[in-house]
Amino acid sequence: MLILNSPEVTQETCLRWKRESPIAFVPTMGCLHDGHLALVQRAKELAPKVVVSIFVNPLQFGPNEDFEKYPRVFEEDCRKLESMGVDLLFHPSVKDLYPDGFSTKISVGEIANRLCGAFRPGHFDGVATVVLKLFEITSCDYAVFGEKDFQQLTVIQQITRDFNLPVCVIPFPTVRADDQVALSSRNSYLSSSEREAAQKIPQALSAARKEALSNPHQTVGELLNKITPELSREGLKIQYLEITQSRRLLPTRPEERLESLSQPHLFVAVYAGSTRLIDNVSLNSGQ
Amino acid sequence: MLILNSPEVTQETCLRWKRESPIAFVPTMGCLHDGHLALVQRAKELAPKVVVSIFVNPLQFGPNEDFEKYPRVFEEDCRKLESMGVDLLFHPSVKDLYPDGFSTKISVGEIANRLCGAFRPGHFDGVATVVLKLFEITSCDYAVFGEKDFQQLTVIQQITRDFNLPVCVIPFPTVRADDQVALSSRNSYLSSSEREAAQKIPQALSAARKEALSNPHQTVGELLNKITPELSREGLKIQYLEITQSRRLLPTRPEERLESLSQPHLFVAVYAGSTRLIDNVSLNSGQ
Repeated sequence: MLILNSPEVTQETCLRWKRESPIAFVPTMGCLHDGHLALVQRAKELAPKVVVSIFVNPLQFGPNEDFEKYPRVFEEDCRKLESMGVDLLFHPSVKDLYPDGFSTKISVGEIANRLCGAFRPGHFDGVATVVLKLFEITSCDYAVFGEKDFQQLTVIQQITRDFNLPVCVIPFPTVRADDQVALSSRNSYLSSSEREAAQKIPQALSAARKEALSNPHQTVGELLNKITPELSREGLKIQYLEITQSRRLLPTRPEERLESLSQPHLFVAVYAGSTRLIDNVSLNSGQ
Repeated sequence: MLILNSPEVTQETCLRWKRESPIAFVPTMGCLHDGHLALVQRAKELAPKVVVSIFVNPLQFGPNEDFEKYPRVFEEDCRKLESMGVDLLFHPSVKDLYPDGFSTKISVGEIANRLCGAFRPGHFDGVATVVLKLFEITSCDYAVFGEKDFQQLTVIQQITRDFNLPVCVIPFPTVRADDQVALSSRNSYLSSSEREAAQKIPQALSAARKEALSNPHQTVGELLNKITPELSREGLKIQYLEITQSRRLLPTRPEERLESLSQPHLFVAVYAGSTRLIDNVSLNSGQ
């Protein structure tokens, strides 16, 4: 496995590879868990060359967020990727990606300001900026993103469409632990009692999905009222709990009936102690 | 010459070509003059495949600017490009490039807010957005930009660096008419007396360059004072007249000596009647 820090050398290498074969790419912030490794496995099925990046992107962290404390375990990550047969690990420094004089920003628009975006101003613009850069550096034909960060996936799909990026964005279903909690590098922040509380999240989402499918005649407000108590107890604090519609994650009104929505999707962000956890589930019968 | 409207078909075509040979690209707004054709000629020297786009980009026009009235002579343009052996002319509609739901914008930062940017808010962000899209659609290895729009060229170099675009941006010297007026599609707006007045612009720039090279000890303010009267008479109205430094076109102060500046560059925008004309010249001895 090649390990490169330099954007220029990585770009040259990938452009050379691309002449011979397609490239699949998995961007990560490191601290790799089985969810990441499932994305890498999917990438290996998509293309003969697989590139993974590890970069904790300061642009997508707010001033009071966990940029400094975000877990970094580079050598362990390397071993995992090496053993999976990854071809290139791109591991730039902040200065490599944002040298002096860097000034261009992306604004994704409406979709970046809802759900998580409402609580993390600038977060998705920062994600979009780094992902565009990584797409350019790796010349990837495919890029795999987990549905755990469903809004992020949607933002990437938006910039890919809007900028005509020649990249096929591949969604991958959320990978869950035995207790059904969605895998996340931030789960390492949880105490054992917080972890137990966190189990309420997938339980509530799963119950919501069942409810929605068995009674699509109920309204958005009715369904949210049913699951809010599930998430409010046991040491969790809801930041938002929302049902969106369409692939553009448009807001819905409480009085709208589920059956009238196209691609209804339930999103939640909660705090377990000081750790923020997100999860989501489709309320569509097809999925 | 292939003529295509569809971004998807153009992208497929260019990606196929790119496997065999490099692609050079010249973006234009049409109404092609010899300046454009010199860029196309340069593109032909750079790569075996040459793509030209004609697209009057609404994003880079202000609400009171000449988007509607901008000259459009598509068939004449086609003949010119065909006779030069251009391989592909990309000619999308506004809806092709900005379909419903398009929402992502680029902000280039400081450099987009100076010089022309101070008088045309959002102009360079609009340029950057469409050029990024065109780079993605054409997969170009080279892109040729005229130095007549020097700030635009600088903005494109900025986004190319900032987004790690795998494109080599090639500047091309301003092409001038016999009377030394820089070629511009907007020159067609000029009456004959305005055209005569416009000749003062290259004369003043040329005099300024001579002055600067022969007396680099003088200050920015002194040089600007010498040429301001030249540009103020004869039916011209100065919008701005500025000396910048560095490839990032940083502002200078009136008391700074020319010899203390790196890459000093003189920029001017004037009105001849209701037509806005721009021009620029390097004050560097090397150029």
